[in-house]
Amino acid sequence: MVVALGGNAILRKGERGYVEEQWRNIKRAAEVIVGIYERGYRVVVTHGNGPQIGALMELFEIAKEKIPPLTMDIASAMTQAWIGYMLQLEIGNILEEKGFERKVVAIINTVSVDPRDKAFEEPTKFIGPFYTLEEAKKLFIEKKWVFKEDPRGGWRRVVASPQPLVNNEIEVIKALVERDFIVIASGGGGVPVVRGGKRLYGIEAVIDKDLASAILAISLGADKLVILTDVDGAYLNYGRPNAILLQKISVEEAKRLLKEGVFGEGSMKPKIEAAIRFTEATGRESIIGNLDKALEVIDGKGTVIVP
Amino acid sequence: MVVALGGNAILRKGERGYVEEQWRNIKRAAEVIVGIYERGYRVVVTHGNGPQIGALMELFEIAKEKIPPLTMDIASAMTQAWIGYMLQLEIGNILEEKGFERKVVAIINTVSVDPRDKAFEEPTKFIGPFYTLEEAKKLFIEKKWVFKEDPRGGWRRVVASPQPLVNNEIEVIKALVERDFIVIASGGGGVPVVRGGKRLYGIEAVIDKDLASAILAISLGADKLVILTDVDGAYLNYGRPNAILLQKISVEEAKRLLKEGVFGEGSMKPKIEAAIRFTEATGRESIIGNLDKALEVIDGKGTVIVP
Repeated sequence: MVVALGGNAILRKGERGYVEEQWRNIKRAAEVIVGIYERGYRVVVTHGNGPQIGALMELFEIAKEKIPPLTMDIASAMTQAWIGYMLQLEIGNILEEKGFERKVVAIINTVSVDPRDKAFEEPTKFIGPFYTLEEAKKLFIEKKWVFKEDPRGGWRRVVASPQPLVNNEIEVIKALVERDFIVIASGGGGVPVVRGGKRLYGIEAVIDKDLASAILAISLGADKLVILTDVDGAYLNYGRPNAILLQKISVEEAKRLLKEGVFGEGSMKPKIEAAIRFTEATGRESIIGNLDKALEVIDGKGTVIVP
Repeated sequence: MVVALGGNAILRKGERGYVEEQWRNIKRAAEVIVGIYERGYRVVVTHGNGPQIGALMELFEIAKEKIPPLTMDIASAMTQAWIGYMLQLEIGNILEEKGFERKVVAIINTVSVDPRDKAFEEPTKFIGPFYTLEEAKKLFIEKKWVFKEDPRGGWRRVVASPQPLVNNEIEVIKALVERDFIVIASGGGGVPVVRGGKRLYGIEAVIDKDLASAILAISLGADKLVILTDVDGAYLNYGRPNAILLQKISVEEAKRLLKEGVFGEGSMKPKIEAAIRFTEATGRESIIGNLDKALEVIDGKGTVIVP
């Protein structure tokens, strides 16, 4: 089973991201993962990294006169370790407390994208700090960064979010899952790389973690893709009084609703797309549900996408 | 074979640490690792993280008003990913160029230390930026950080460097090595953790990467521990006109020279200690040699420590 943890596994609404807050959230997420493991599933865990990679890129910018800044591919790997380490330690602790062996590990995981992906023509993902127009122009010339006006005011760098194609460490993950390890992989969607001949190169982009989780789940031959977030599932009329939770929808229905623009850009939409991708490719169910009710979610409480 | 890469695998003397410099150095190190792999060895790679964790802790300090700083255990994991990602990508590229499968992965790796280790009573390892005495006093009160005067001027935080006891991911590493993967592990000596009952807790400390490599090599049952650095081996009268390279020494001789204070604190001394640790525990050879001549080093060109 591939379990994709939403951002709320690390940072809850209203939190600034103090380390103590992070550990408290990670602990809850780790309990969920071990709960699933206890039911006999072999589990691969993925997670987001939006706020974390934003914070890192901002750190590099703030200190750039003193410390040579790192590139976004390295920053992406660093967020895999940041969150992966916390999950690994805490999942291990709960495993041990429950009498299991400490069989859990986080790996550095790259994901290949197509260098000709149309996303590169028009980058859309805001990343890092806010700038004035003058600063933005300067950085555009200096570093070829692309900027857009953030609706919240100010200019921010935007990067491409290309489609994930190949998880490059799939053989490692398979080998470890077969040995009964819980594996934390494809963190933040994976470190984005492109292939050039026999070489892979890191690039400045972000990969959607739900789509990357679908690619991973398909390659692994997973029985189920479970996407955990901060709502109970996908809704019709989300946020309005007449909101209806979609309990079970077919791939065809999901595609139709997607086309109608029912789901929130950057929030529910990529989750539905990921579920479609997995269920269409494998004929197996995907579930989108609430992290805080995860053990009910894996039994079907949420939005189940069926073939 | 456990191969411990020195700091020069990432940063050479005189470099500031621009990403391009890092890739150039990493590429050379990766060629060395694949060269060893080509000779039929199964290889586990370890590496240091001194300048990198220093830079990260400094970044957190510089930006602390804007972004909640992370703790040193998380920073340590992040340096494993920073360097681990670069090594993983480049070793993979060279493997593929030479017609091998891309079988290489970096893992997040914690190493347990004893919370009663005497090192905690008197921290010695400088870490992060320079402070005035006033700033140091303030941070001592705020965060209980310990400071010492750096011989280069100014006050710097010092942390403990306790003895590594247990590599907590040894089963993962074994499983992957058995499947013929090159594994990058125990980066920066490992993320330091202490055991409290059935739980592990991250702590603010640094572990010597050579000693951690010896612990790893012993637990793995490695045939050889190879420590690569920026000199040809251990010397008598190092840095003087009458310097002599030690070509082959027994554990007993090494211990005697260590006691006589022949080896540089924080440079050759921990390497000799690591070699003694491995060779004494296993009855097998350790070698200390130059990264730039690594393929000769594994054939014995360097300082060989024999039982």
